[in-house]
Amino acid sequence: MKINSNYLKLENNYLFSTITKKVEDYKSKYPKKEIINLGIGDVTQPLPTAVINALHKAVSEMSSKHTFRGYGPEHGYNFLKTAIRTYYEKRGVFLEENEIFISEGANSDLGNILDIFSNDNTVLIPDPVYPVYMDTNIMAGRKIIFMCATEENNFLPMPDKNIKADIIFICSPNNPTGAVYNKDQLKEWVDYALSCNAVIIFDGAYEAYIQDRKLPRSIYEIEDAKKCAIEICSLSKNAGFTGTRCGYTIVPNELRFEGVHLNMLWLRRQTTKFNGVAYIIQRAAEAAFTEEGQAEISKFINYYMDNAKIICNTLQNMNIWFTGGENSPYIWLKCPKGMTSWEFFDFLLERANTVGSPGSGFGKNGEGFFRLTSFGDRKNVEIAMKKISSILI
Amino acid sequence: MKINSNYLKLENNYLFSTITKKVEDYKSKYPKKEIINLGIGDVTQPLPTAVINALHKAVSEMSSKHTFRGYGPEHGYNFLKTAIRTYYEKRGVFLEENEIFISEGANSDLGNILDIFSNDNTVLIPDPVYPVYMDTNIMAGRKIIFMCATEENNFLPMPDKNIKADIIFICSPNNPTGAVYNKDQLKEWVDYALSCNAVIIFDGAYEAYIQDRKLPRSIYEIEDAKKCAIEICSLSKNAGFTGTRCGYTIVPNELRFEGVHLNMLWLRRQTTKFNGVAYIIQRAAEAAFTEEGQAEISKFINYYMDNAKIICNTLQNMNIWFTGGENSPYIWLKCPKGMTSWEFFDFLLERANTVGSPGSGFGKNGEGFFRLTSFGDRKNVEIAMKKISSILI
Repeated sequence: MKINSNYLKLENNYLFSTITKKVEDYKSKYPKKEIINLGIGDVTQPLPTAVINALHKAVSEMSSKHTFRGYGPEHGYNFLKTAIRTYYEKRGVFLEENEIFISEGANSDLGNILDIFSNDNTVLIPDPVYPVYMDTNIMAGRKIIFMCATEENNFLPMPDKNIKADIIFICSPNNPTGAVYNKDQLKEWVDYALSCNAVIIFDGAYEAYIQDRKLPRSIYEIEDAKKCAIEICSLSKNAGFTGTRCGYTIVPNELRFEGVHLNMLWLRRQTTKFNGVAYIIQRAAEAAFTEEGQAEISKFINYYMDNAKIICNTLQNMNIWFTGGENSPYIWLKCPKGMTSWEFFDFLLERANTVGSPGSGFGKNGEGFFRLTSFGDRKNVEIAMKKISSILI
Repeated sequence: MKINSNYLKLENNYLFSTITKKVEDYKSKYPKKEIINLGIGDVTQPLPTAVINALHKAVSEMSSKHTFRGYGPEHGYNFLKTAIRTYYEKRGVFLEENEIFISEGANSDLGNILDIFSNDNTVLIPDPVYPVYMDTNIMAGRKIIFMCATEENNFLPMPDKNIKADIIFICSPNNPTGAVYNKDQLKEWVDYALSCNAVIIFDGAYEAYIQDRKLPRSIYEIEDAKKCAIEICSLSKNAGFTGTRCGYTIVPNELRFEGVHLNMLWLRRQTTKFNGVAYIIQRAAEAAFTEEGQAEISKFINYYMDNAKIICNTLQNMNIWFTGGENSPYIWLKCPKGMTSWEFFDFLLERANTVGSPGSGFGKNGEGFFRLTSFGDRKNVEIAMKKISSILI
């Protein structure tokens, strides 16, 4: 039996496991120190009450033979698809129910969607970027081209007509940089994809953090995007589903390559390799899209965005260059005093007992940069920012 | 962009969707007829009380900031792994916690596990068989060899030393035939796999239905199996999780190919393409393995096995050849009067208003055979069996 030798080409140290190890080592050395984690992008607020109530109700249904649910549709229940359709309609995007596929999270679908594409395609990926785009394509042996995101382009790389790509990953608001494309910029990407017959995988996991109403929250707000783009979204960062697991993927009916509808291929993939999301979780997700659910989610997002403001203000006061934080839970800063990303990581851990994510872990252009997230507890964010201010002044 | 053209080699009609369509057509023609479904392998009993209680408790935890859970370990929480370890220990199988990976169901893992193997491998699959083994390998473009399961070998094909395979799928108790390998037979498979350096993917989704204590419920009850086998299990058919989604995959530390530990490859796959199972679902699964949970599960299984007895007795009285039903929820019968599988399907639907699964949908050796499942409601099983008796005598 031959293993998939592409796996051997993966780098050994996964960013977050390295961070965890470093923090654990520090903790065992200084067990009394309290560490504040502004590193991993995990939420800290509980599930909205509307979601909790829907979960209890659905669990009770599962306890009676008459309301018990066994296998559901692999692509998701219509009640949830309808809720998502309505959510999109509010910003002028009209979807068919069969274009929406309920998933157990954006992370899985970002990897799994690649199943329906040939391994011969060339992939265009921003650098720095969420490591999953790169690793999943290395696993399949695809050729990868990186587009440089730098301080000069505000970490928003634009298409280069000299480069020919087949699959383009775009994440906006971006993880890790927090940078957000405007409509004109996304239109350039759509035009580029159409011109070279490429498909865009649009990761919209952070769309709910966009405060500026002029910025696009879905790629389908851009003309012709349905002819070239798949959109992958999640309930993790808005409704707090990081530990509850639900997302959705949109594959428009208009998307055709080599005369084949990608929607049909994805449907086939999902009905073969997936058995759908738990009924109780889909009811929870449905509740997140209700008026009550959305009102609670707004509160959580405001809470996190107020954290972001505290971080941004601190950085501004210290004259540290950064992007993000305005329409995104991520703040991407230039390491002060010419430190490398890991040097700044160690510096913050040891001197401010604060954990962030080294930018170099997201790609070579991330070197010298650093990601802070606004998902922490308010008090912790304030303490961390005070400490950072005091050690850097 | 080039699509994965292997998808175009898949057959268009998925068995269960064809069944659904035929049933819907019949219903729209005769709206007053009540149809009894002994076709799809879905459970009908509610979740055990222990599971329901654990779910409510875990949901409540998610409502408070202090007990809320965000991202969990991608490979699962230790509390559930410990429960599974203990479950295996009772039958003398000792596992390490890192060998157990919690999944959102056996179906996904049966497809996803193939990620870590080269597409150049040759796959050995029983015919007839659960269609997922075949379809997922067609999607990856692997060469498939079928091993014939027939009336002559009681639908339990044994290794053929003239055939060289790299990946071997074994399902015992088998879906769709209900046939179960004994220890000597599984030992032959383990020896064969070791002799040709192959890996066995052992699908144990129905292990809880084994009544005969001499029959192996895990492949690891066989000497040296840890050197060649991955085991994939599910809570769907024992704890009623078909709509709640939880399973587990065991990748022993001893499994090495080309000097690489498969456990490490699978860990890398899961930490990259998966974000773990919902916390509340893992608590539900943990409850299923408690003494209280297991006692309730036994009751459900006894209920289904009593259904199986009713079906078996009816078939015996009519002198219809069948296998399964004794240690499995599936009864695999030879269609009477020389009917083909689909002829018998139509005959049962029209004359007894009962739905089963045509054996030919599971492979060419399934032609002329038919699958009935014991997951139905008792009263429905009794009505269906009476009707079948009356139309066949």
